[in-house]
Amino acid sequence: MSEEFAFAIFGVDGAARTGAISTSRGTIRTPAFMPVGTAATVKAMHPQAVKALGADIVLANTYHLMLRPGAERIAELGGLHRFMNWPGPILTDSGGFQVMSLAKLRKLDENGVTFQSHIDGSRHVLTPERSMQIQDLLGADIQMQFDECVKLPCTEAEARRAMELSLRWGERSKQAFARQPGRALFGIVQGGASESLRRESARALVEMEFDGYALGGLAVGEPQDVMLAMIDCTAPQLPSPKPRYLMGVGSPDDLIESVARGIDMFDCVMPTRAGRHGLAYTRAGKLNLRNARHAGDPAPVDANSPNEATRTYSRAYLHHLVKSGEILGMMLLTEINLAYYQELMAGMRAAIAAGCFDAFRAETKESWRGGMIAGEEF
Amino acid sequence: MSEEFAFAIFGVDGAARTGAISTSRGTIRTPAFMPVGTAATVKAMHPQAVKALGADIVLANTYHLMLRPGAERIAELGGLHRFMNWPGPILTDSGGFQVMSLAKLRKLDENGVTFQSHIDGSRHVLTPERSMQIQDLLGADIQMQFDECVKLPCTEAEARRAMELSLRWGERSKQAFARQPGRALFGIVQGGASESLRRESARALVEMEFDGYALGGLAVGEPQDVMLAMIDCTAPQLPSPKPRYLMGVGSPDDLIESVARGIDMFDCVMPTRAGRHGLAYTRAGKLNLRNARHAGDPAPVDANSPNEATRTYSRAYLHHLVKSGEILGMMLLTEINLAYYQELMAGMRAAIAAGCFDAFRAETKESWRGGMIAGEEF
Repeated sequence: MSEEFAFAIFGVDGAARTGAISTSRGTIRTPAFMPVGTAATVKAMHPQAVKALGADIVLANTYHLMLRPGAERIAELGGLHRFMNWPGPILTDSGGFQVMSLAKLRKLDENGVTFQSHIDGSRHVLTPERSMQIQDLLGADIQMQFDECVKLPCTEAEARRAMELSLRWGERSKQAFARQPGRALFGIVQGGASESLRRESARALVEMEFDGYALGGLAVGEPQDVMLAMIDCTAPQLPSPKPRYLMGVGSPDDLIESVARGIDMFDCVMPTRAGRHGLAYTRAGKLNLRNARHAGDPAPVDANSPNEATRTYSRAYLHHLVKSGEILGMMLLTEINLAYYQELMAGMRAAIAAGCFDAFRAETKESWRGGMIAGEEF
Repeated sequence: MSEEFAFAIFGVDGAARTGAISTSRGTIRTPAFMPVGTAATVKAMHPQAVKALGADIVLANTYHLMLRPGAERIAELGGLHRFMNWPGPILTDSGGFQVMSLAKLRKLDENGVTFQSHIDGSRHVLTPERSMQIQDLLGADIQMQFDECVKLPCTEAEARRAMELSLRWGERSKQAFARQPGRALFGIVQGGASESLRRESARALVEMEFDGYALGGLAVGEPQDVMLAMIDCTAPQLPSPKPRYLMGVGSPDDLIESVARGIDMFDCVMPTRAGRHGLAYTRAGKLNLRNARHAGDPAPVDANSPNEATRTYSRAYLHHLVKSGEILGMMLLTEINLAYYQELMAGMRAAIAAGCFDAFRAETKESWRGGMIAGEEF
């Protein structure tokens, strides 16, 4: 644990950047997609397979792990990396977002949030100090400040109140952060759908000097153009030498458009959750394997994919597994989706380095037209 | 598909034998445990992983596949091996057992069984001829005669009626079997819990000359000593140079006791089903990972196992995954169980070849005492 946390940018193409984040547990190539390992597992995937598909880092959820099995329990067992058999870097969120979306009987005040577990109704308190303590117990390499994330749409007054509270919580998180060599703490820009609030939040966080900066409270139901406008007004406020992380995003199109605007890191349940529900993300767009048109189709999901499962199993077999509720269907489609997401990130990294990101973006979007047929919805 | 089906016995120790069955798709080391791939997938396992654990052959269920996706559909797609990405040998059952246990509104007569699908209520007819046609469409390497399997306990008259019907269906199955080089058809000994009926069934089947002989209608709720008694009276009736297959069995103890009595092949859902429900089979006996005593235990399931998952993941992590309903818990415990089953078979094969099967049997049973603690039930 001696290596310092650092971010090196190797290439820039427009606002897009490619580089590498160094941590004591390994290097993260950027732009990076982080598979979500909510409860200390990327659902339906062996950790070795997640790595083999190209992931350099996974995300785990503070809220879920504090409730089950508990942060102290994981610390006693040697930390989250050993617990889930993932020796590479791990990012943990602060728990704030999921307290708001999952917990029961929430009571929020200046100090933090009191809530009941959605699992067993037990009572818990999450504050900036406790969130940082949990992330320290887990041993996360990249830790997030505690914040309040409002649902969109919301009033400007509500967005301001939550943004200002998040700034005060950001300061308390920074004080409470158990700094160690190779570990980082990121601040989170809030401000709802307001450009001025987002700029104000970003400037205040930059003054506090975090190791990286995240955009929170986006991809919570607003149209894509609103999300992109928030990136457009925020990214220029952030110091270029620090990583920028767009939380909870997104679709392949969201990823390309956000990288074009200077984002370096992403996490999203989309590829894993969609895989468990029969949807494949491919170079030719989305495929809904539940659809009866695949029942007799001997073609694989993508005969030219670098991923073996994507090349090997027929659409007919995947359709059969999905219709039969077979676990292997979830395993294969999760793998196929994570493989495509990582292939897309690798493509973006190479295109930025080669100075042809715009051409890559146009070609990739064109290629997605071949997937689901007209009128077919997921 | 030119190699002939054959069985070579390399070593004998008491009634136990070890050898190899040759098929056009590969060799099956015996005694063999066949993982169950009900719906064209060994649940929660990649086929490559099933192979890597030591399985030479898997079983698939005619009843399930005829209903979904349909035998003709699989044939159009190039057969079951290609469909499920398992290039090795496959054994299919006749569908008879599961028609009796799963289907609705069954009507049995001399011709066969008319029934409704448990999936969608659709009406189907299964006869010896249709069962063999389905197994041919699937392309199974080892096919089973159509039979009627009665529930135990039952009257002697009922056992006799079903046994005699199964003999007539065995003859019709033999006539309908689409023989190809490297493919085999097995007859099935029935007769309930009656030694005399079992002997009568075995002698009649041997006269018909099948490629191998199975014991059916056992492990259907009767005590282990009844099952072993049926093996004891049946095995001596069967020709030594032909493989003997005990259908649907069993626990590790059932496997050892049956091999001691001359059985060569087994299939059972026990290791896969138990794995999906939190139970591990290990060299030290069974472990119920749901039990709270494992919640803080950093020890792996077996630190000395040749299987990496068994050696690597802590009992605490597996407990967490099982309690959280995580798919990875099912994946890892299924693998751990299949690994132990294959390790047990490999141990028996080596012990028979070395002429020390009795010592192996005694040592293995002694080792099982270390697992679940007193009063802990699964």
